Order: sequence, then structure tokens, then C-alpha cells
Amino acid sequence: MAPSTLTIDPPGLMDSRPTFSHVATSLGDNVRFICTAGQVGSDAQGNIPSDRTEQIQLALANLRRCIEAAGATVKDIQKLVYYIVDYDHTRRDHFLPLKAFLNGHRPATSLVPVPKLFKPGVIFEIEAYLAVPQRSPQNVDVVVVGAGLSGLSAAHQLQEAGFSCAVLEARNRVGGKTWSVDATDQGKFVDVGAAWINDTNQSEVFALTKALGLETVVQNTTGRVVQQDIDGKVSTFVYGDVPKALSEPGGAQNMLDIRNLTEEVCQKLDVHHPVRIGDDLDNMTLEGWIVSNGGGKTALASATVWTRAMLGMEPKDMSALFFLNYCKSGGGLMQMRSDLKNGGQYLRLVKGTQSLSIGLAEQLKPGSLSLDDPVRYIEQSPSGLHVYSAKGKHTCKRVIVSLPTPLYKDIVFSPALPQDKLELSQANKLGFINKVLVRYPSPWWREPGLTGMLQSFTGPVSVTRDSSVDPVGSYSLTCFVAGDAGRALSTLSKAERFKVVTEQIKATLGVAAKVNIPEPTGIEEHEWAHDLWAQGCPCPAAPPGTMTKYEHALRSSHGKVHFVGTETAYEWKGYMEGAIRSGKRGADEVIRALNLAKL
Amino acid sequence: MAPSTLTIDPPGLMDSRPTFSHVATSLGDNVRFICTAGQVGSDAQGNIPSDRTEQIQLALANLRRCIEAAGATVKDIQKLVYYIVDYDHTRRDHFLPLKAFLNGHRPATSLVPVPKLFKPGVIFEIEAYLAVPQRSPQNVDVVVVGAGLSGLSAAHQLQEAGFSCAVLEARNRVGGKTWSVDATDQGKFVDVGAAWINDTNQSEVFALTKALGLETVVQNTTGRVVQQDIDGKVSTFVYGDVPKALSEPGGAQNMLDIRNLTEEVCQKLDVHHPVRIGDDLDNMTLEGWIVSNGGGKTALASATVWTRAMLGMEPKDMSALFFLNYCKSGGGLMQMRSDLKNGGQYLRLVKGTQSLSIGLAEQLKPGSLSLDDPVRYIEQSPSGLHVYSAKGKHTCKRVIVSLPTPLYKDIVFSPALPQDKLELSQANKLGFINKVLVRYPSPWWREPGLTGMLQSFTGPVSVTRDSSVDPVGSYSLTCFVAGDAGRALSTLSKAERFKVVTEQIKATLGVAAKVNIPEPTGIEEHEWAHDLWAQGCPCPAAPPGTMTKYEHALRSSHGKVHFVGTETAYEWKGYMEGAIRSGKRGADEVIRALNLAKL
Repeated sequence: MAPSTLTIDPPGLMDSRPTFSHVATSLGDNVRFICTAGQVGSDAQGNIPSDRTEQIQLALANLRRCIEAAGATVKDIQKLVYYIVDYDHTRRDHFLPLKAFLNGHRPATSLVPVPKLFKPGVIFEIEAYLAVPQRSPQNVDVVVVGAGLSGLSAAHQLQEAGFSCAVLEARNRVGGKTWSVDATDQGKFVDVGAAWINDTNQSEVFALTKALGLETVVQNTTGRVVQQDIDGKVSTFVYGDVPKALSEPGGAQNMLDIRNLTEEVCQKLDVHHPVRIGDDLDNMTLEGWIVSNGGGKTALASATVWTRAMLGMEPKDMSALFFLNYCKSGGGLMQMRSDLKNGGQYLRLVKGTQSLSIGLAEQLKPGSLSLDDPVRYIEQSPSGLHVYSAKGKHTCKRVIVSLPTPLYKDIVFSPALPQDKLELSQANKLGFINKVLVRYPSPWWREPGLTGMLQSFTGPVSVTRDSSVDPVGSYSLTCFVAGDAGRALSTLSKAERFKVVTEQIKATLGVAAKVNIPEPTGIEEHEWAHDLWAQGCPCPAAPPGTMTKYEHALRSSHGKVHFVGTETAYEWKGYMEGAIRSGKRGADEVIRALNLAKL
Repeated sequence: MAPSTLTIDPPGLMDSRPTFSHVATSLGDNVRFICTAGQVGSDAQGNIPSDRTEQIQLALANLRRCIEAAGATVKDIQKLVYYIVDYDHTRRDHFLPLKAFLNGHRPATSLVPVPKLFKPGVIFEIEAYLAVPQRSPQNVDVVVVGAGLSGLSAAHQLQEAGFSCAVLEARNRVGGKTWSVDATDQGKFVDVGAAWINDTNQSEVFALTKALGLETVVQNTTGRVVQQDIDGKVSTFVYGDVPKALSEPGGAQNMLDIRNLTEEVCQKLDVHHPVRIGDDLDNMTLEGWIVSNGGGKTALASATVWTRAMLGMEPKDMSALFFLNYCKSGGGLMQMRSDLKNGGQYLRLVKGTQSLSIGLAEQLKPGSLSLDDPVRYIEQSPSGLHVYSAKGKHTCKRVIVSLPTPLYKDIVFSPALPQDKLELSQANKLGFINKVLVRYPSPWWREPGLTGMLQSFTGPVSVTRDSSVDPVGSYSLTCFVAGDAGRALSTLSKAERFKVVTEQIKATLGVAAKVNIPEPTGIEEHEWAHDLWAQGCPCPAAPPGTMTKYEHALRSSHGKVHFVGTETAYEWKGYMEGAIRSGKRGADEVIRALNLAKL
């Protein structure tokens, strides 16, 4: 029997152990009741703004996060209770933030002036009681958890094979980390998530692109790349070449040697059995491996550009084996990093990569897809396989979970995941990438002979690329703010972040172009690490020892529950290609099992 | 899909907009969870008693109102939290009021001393969390909302025609504004609501009376009527005649002229198309029409007696067309005001008029009627027509709503009511009538030659009538305290109100009778305007312009939802006769539609 109440601790809130959870929700067929802990204006680190209004706004943002985590909305709030220190009925500084938060909804409410709250400095606390209506219990062959590219691909293949399928998505949109934003509503999409494909070795994603009739543009590689050295000095080199005059003596050659060694060693790996010949590589971090192979400051800075742009992490954060196998999954470091034909960044889509997900979703049978519907409990019991999501319960024959491994913790599995799979999910870490998209009225970098690409050994922007879509007159630079530099920048306000990014563009591309840079027409970003349903981007990485211990558990199913996601792909891990391939692999597993069960 | 949470603002509480509601209730099939906002001892105008006990009692009364509005009872309370300013554990001044409120029920409770509450002077706030069990979802042909005479008549006719029918009633009794109280438990009923019928032109209600075998008594019209003039002077005239010696020079004749004009003009109206020839009459108030036709102070005072007793309003509150058409619906002013054969007040029922409703309800198929079950949400969707009430959900083919138009706001319609119907319901207003029933050991007014009727141009009692039921030894005077005078008296305490009423009886009937009036044996009243499910009495009235704009929307259905109620009758609006006729009209509409659907 399912438990009556599930507790949830949404990431991004202060640690609630050992005495409470931030959210409690009942499980039921008709209405779920949800209550939250009192939320205060504190970030995950316990920092509390001294300004009363800011603190109230942060408390409300935290409450919203709790509500979202439970698969509910502000409209589902039945009751609010808030506690105010130094309450003054002539001031009522909670009123405007609360009004904005509620946006017309009027739950039953109590206001409680109190002499103090749980910690000095806290002047506002708010708790909510909510109810979410439940559809009647559903029966399907397969439930797919997550409507990113892997989940949608699995569902599509399952329905093609004649199986009924429900896709439950936590977000209010499909696409997962394919998310194309059209801020100006003029068809000028920018990809705040996955952006590039190719038409040769990424056969699945290109086939889907063709099948959906989506228009592509070739990544601009004409001109010179701007190099920002470890001392901040700016130089340029022709795209495809390597920087030569760098400040560290011998640094340029050392960097080249490490790059070549990386390529050579990764090519020796068998993506189907990476651990067999790589046990030694899994004993050390990528940084340790580079240093032990004579890599100096410049070589390490160059590797940092790779890991930041590819995984949102530092070379110290991942096992050498993990990184090398990751490269190999995309055909090797050189191919994965390349913007040319056959490279990882060769083509983009005019309408953005989310159009792949939207296109797949539109091909699903009507009623298959449920948005705003996070799954929190999966039960395999004698009475069957049951999936409890925000809006109800599905009983099914198989489940496909398409979440990154570190997010398995957000679903309660009954029985629990096997130990190895559980430990794998705890060991793998998600990186930090914020792709800041700076939109310009024109591609001002081209006339002075630049590709729009920056490679910076100082940061905080590690890499930029020209992400213009010329046919629709959309011009932009994609700025990768990632890894430790990205996390540091993230502590600033949005306005401050954007200022730092545009200043760095001026100081690098601007200086090299020797032109006055026009003012941006707009800036988009998405901090995936703070996204409740991503918690990082693009793909988890494994610290030393993890692959040796748990690689065998990466794709293993748990009873009738199967696992997909781009990190589980053999080829093009972390890319959309890997997502689609993993989804099809999961669908194949399920189809085989269900067909076998028919015999 | 139905919303998860409905909010309710019971009338009579302080305005909760824009950030909260007084009650929130979930919609669901098994248990509804309900929470209230913190309730304080404030009236709707924000007045807060300074006495702590009075304030606590008012807070509890407000909480009870919230609970009743949600279709729950004190017994359904799961949890209470109350907040007390200047809490003194040796005093506990909340204890006795709370104990009386709970009446043996012991919900989970928290007492929270606080330094202050939301507003200076507020010393007590209390909130409740409740659960109401839900019956399993029901399927019926028709749901009737409201078990007053119109709703019961509709249901009866539908069941006679072979359709299954559920009648959902918010109150814990049937009858709506037919409510017969037997305070002494001796079969001496007094009607605090509708009281009179006739046996000639009120064919429906008389047929029902006969069918149910109910005993009638003829209204006493023997003797002299007491007239209290605009200067307070008391005189008498024989019933059926008109007062002559009035203080305003020419006032008696002027009053007679206006009465005759009213009768003449109203007789020209066609109740089926009142607006056609009455557009000019709808441009002005009844007061304006009287004044523009030369009516003086006395004539206006006389008209005020009519509108107070007939609609609980002042001549300035309604359009002239509305009043004239209202009169015409009862055969004209003279017939409607008459207590004689064919008149509006010719007969009463020995067991009170509620016996009509009780009799009808008893003829319904067992299980058809659900009490304490207010409807709050009516949804017409592709999945069907669903009615959500306090105790569960009905799916049906048609709905009949038998509420006064101004109460439509208390039901959420999805889709919303059409704009014209919505505006009509907002434009129509309910009057204030408190029928104070003063019971005496004997009909002391008869021996001195009085009918027991008073007509007062000063008030606060505008009209009295002998409401005795001689066969059971029940003697009483019905005192109409209505309109502005009624509302003013309503601000006094019950004891003060009764004192004012009995003093006026002494000063008018008593003076005219020249006898010592015996002490009343009891007094009953009901302030219909403060009744959650009536909000006024007997029937809404329309201010100028409303009929011209919206008369066409008065009886129009909204998709599969039909509307009845005495105000929608063509004949005997505001009377029980009109209620029954409107109920039958609604049933006819539904039967036609359902039979058509069968073809």
C-alpha cells in the first residue's frame, strides 16, 4: 500500500534535517493535500537579506519552489499563514510582494505578528496548505518519466510499436534541456540549452531534424578566434589553428601536447567497456592526469575551457577516465570540440532545438502527455507497477525514467533502487553551465574578421560562439559561463552578471575587433543548476572511482523500471544525439520485455 | 478539470479582498479539506467590540459562518488555532465562549499568545481546518439547487415525469423562505417567512394545499385598522376603507389619487412583456414617478408602506416599472395588498406555510434530498455537467438553480454566466424584511373592535396583521419591520429591537384599543437579510434601467443550467404561488429538453 504522506526537500532550500521537511504531500486518487514548512527569506547557505522587502520576496520565492516541487501552483493554495516580526499595521511591507505572488488568487489566510522567529534577523515566515486535483487512475503499458528528448524518443518508439504510453513531465513544457526562447516574439529563437547537431555522425538527431522538416544553419567558423591568455592578454588565431604566442614559456606547445595525448588516449577506449582498459585512468582526476603527464598552467587552462564548456565543471571535478570516455563517445576530443563538418557544433536549428522535442511530442497519441506533473513515487508491488505523479496514479507494465542519475533521489522507489544504482546516482555530479545569450542588432564581429569565438583562460566567460541565425536576422553571441567561474558569477544579481559578461566581450572580442560594439538588444540566460528539474547541465560527470565501481549499473533496470538519458548513451553522451539514442535503447528494452511477456 | 480549491466569502464578514478569502475548500470525491482564514471579532464594517468576551464571541460567530458557508459543521473541525493578545492563563476569557461554540466537540487545537494582531484593538483570532466526508459521485438526470418551494416543485414535477432528480439544499431544512416556527412545541406555528395564500387566483399553491390536505384559516379583516400618520398621530378606519383625517392638508385625497393611478398604470402592463410599453417607467424610481405625478408626503409614506411590506425596500430603491409590474403579477396593487377573498393575504395555514414545502419534500423519492449541502461549483465541460456541493459531486443532464438572482454570485459557474445574466444578478437587490411575531395569550385587539392591522407612516413597524390561528389557540401580531427602518432597527440588540416593536404596538394599537395590553408570551423574528442562504426577503427588486437592459435574461438558461425562483414568475412574483409556477416552468423546460434528447 502506498504511504499516505510523502516528504520532499526541494534543492536550493536550506537543509531541513533532522526535524522537518519543506513539503509534505498526501497520496490519493482524487485530491492530494500538500503542506509546506514555514518558508523564510534565506538562501540555501542560510544567508538572509537585511532588507525587509527583499527578505519577504525571497521567502515567497522559496515557497513557490516548494509548491512547484510538489507539482502544484499558487492557484492550488488553500491556506496561507504568515508570521511577521515587528509587525506594523500602518506599514504592511508584506502586502505588495504577497499580492504579486498571489497574482489574483486569494487563499484563506492568517497573519500572525510574533516577537521573533527561529533565528535573529528573520522577520517573515510563511507556510501554505494546498490541494491538487487528481485525475482518475489510469492504466497504460508504459509510463515515461520526463518529456526531454530521451523520454519523448522512447515514448515515440513505444507508440510506433503499438504500446500505450503516458509521458509525465514535471515542467510546463516539453524538451528538458532543449529550450528555445523567442524573447522578442519575432521567430528569433535562442537556445538557452542544447544548441548544436551535425548531419553525419549524429544520425539519429539529424534524421529527426529531417523527418520534422526543420531548417538548419551552419555554425560560422569564418575568421579568427580570440584568445584570452592566463594573464588576460588578448590575441587571435585563425579558426582551426591553435594559439601560439602565449605568456607561459612553452605553454602553447605543452597545451598542444596534452591535447594530442588526450585525443590519443581517448581513441583507445571502448565506449561499451570503458573500465576494462581504463582502471588506472579512473584512479585520478582529469587535472591529476594532465599534471602527471606534464601539463602546465596553460594546458590546464585549456582543459578547463573544455570541461567548463562540455560539462560545466573543472578538470579536478571528474575522473580522467570519465572525461576521456565522454570525449570518445563523441568520436574523440577533436571531433566533439569541432564546429566544422562532422564536429559536435556544426549545425543549429532556425527555430531552436526545442522544435525537435515539440515535434516529437506532437507526434504522440493525443492525451499521452501530461505537463506540470512531476513523478515522486514509483512502486513495484504484488498489486502491480504504480507511478504516482502530481496529478494522479498510473498503473503500467513498465516504466522508463529519463532523468539524470543525480535526480533519482527526487523519486521514492519502492522497493528502493539497488545499492549500486543508488550509489552511482549519489556519486555522479551535475555541472554548472549558464549560456548567456547576448543579442545584438548586427554581427559586428564579422566585418573585422572574427568568428565570434572567444577562448578565455581567465573567464568568467570561457567560450563564446556566434549563435546568429542569419536567415531570420537574429544575431547573438553565446557566452559559456560555467564551472567554478559560473557558480561564482551566479552569486551576483542578474544585472551584475550581464554587466560582467558584456564587459568581458568588450575587453576581448571588442578589443580584437577594434570597433565600437553596439549595445545588446537583449540578453537571455538560464542557470540550469538552479532549475528544479535539471539541477545542472548538460550531463552528470563521475568523480574518480565511480565508473570502476558503478559503470555496470548505469543502464541496468530496476525490476520493471528502465533508465535512459543522454549520460547513458554509448555515443554522443551529453548531446541530443545521445539523448535520442538512449531513449530508443530504453524503448527497445521495454518492447522486448513486453513482447516476451505476450508469448 | 475542476479547480482544486474554491474560495468562499460569506456575506456579513469583513471584506477580505484582495489577498485572502474567509473560507477555502477543496473539491474532491472522498473527503474535502477546508481551511478558514483567521477570524476576528469584527463585523462586516470593521467594527470591533472593545469588550474581550464580546469580541471573542463575534470571532466565533464569524468562524461558524465560514464553516456553514462551506457546508460543514463545528463537528467537522479537525484543527483549531487561536491567537490571543495579552493572554493571561489565569483569566482565559476565551474558554467559556469557545466551549459553548464547540458544544462537546474537541478538535485538535493550538493556543498561540501573540504580542498583537493585524489591527490595533483585535485581541483574538481563530482559524479552523476541517474535513467533510464525500458520498461517492452520483449520476442523476437533473440536479435541483435549492429546496425552497420553487426547487421542490420543479423536482416533484420532474420525478412525476419519470426523471431522476437530486435536490441539494444548503440549509438543514427544506422550505427556503417558507419557515414555520413552533417555539412552544404546541403546534402553534408562526411563519417568520411567507405566510399568505388565496384559493382563487393562486391556483397552484391552493391546489398543493388541497393535495396535501392542509388546513387553512381565513385572515381576520373584521374591525378597524389603526393608522399612524406621518406626525405619529393615531386614528382608525374600517378595514377596506381609507384613512381620511390626515395631518397633511389634502394628503388623504392625494394618497388615494396616487393609489388609483398606480392601479390604473399597472393594469396596463403585460407581465410577459413589461418592458415593451414601460420603457419610460423604467427610467425613474417609484419615488420619482410618484412625485412627478403629484404625490406628496402622505402619498409617498403610503407607498413606502407598500414597498416595505411587499419588498423590504423604499420607493427610491426600485424602478417604477419594476414595482408596477410586480403589482400586476399579483393582479394589481389592490388585489396584491388585499386580505380579502382573491387578495394576496386571504388565507393562512394552520401548520404554517413550511408545511407546503415539507409535504412536497416528503413526496420526493427517498434519497432525493440532501440537506446541509450547498452547491458551490457548476461545471459544463466536454466530460459532462457536474455539480459540486459540500458533500460530493453529481453528474447530470440538466441543472435547475432555484436561487434569487443576487445569490448567483455564490456559485462558481464554469463556463461563467453570460454577461447579461451576470449583470442582471448584480443589478437586482434584495430587500430587508424582519417579520417580528409577537405572541400574546389572547387576541386583545379584537374586543375593542380592531382587526390587529396597523399602517404606520412613521415606523419602524410599517404594518401589523393579526396572524392568530384560532383553532389551535395561537394568537399573534405579525409586525413588518422593513426597508430602511428595518435595517436601522437591525443595528440594535434583539432585546432592544423587541422593546421598540412592543412599544410601538402599545402606542398605536394599544392606544386605539384603549386597553392594557397583556405581556407577550414570546417573540419570534428572522432577519432574512442576515441569513446566509437568503440574504434578503422576499424577492429581489430592480433599480431603474435594469429591466430594460436585462429582463430578457431573467429566465434564460445557461447551456444546460436552468433558473427558477419566484422572481422569475410571470404571476404572483415574490409569492409562494410565483415560486411554484416558476419551478414548474423550469421543470417543463428541462423535460422538453430531455425528451428531445431521447429522440
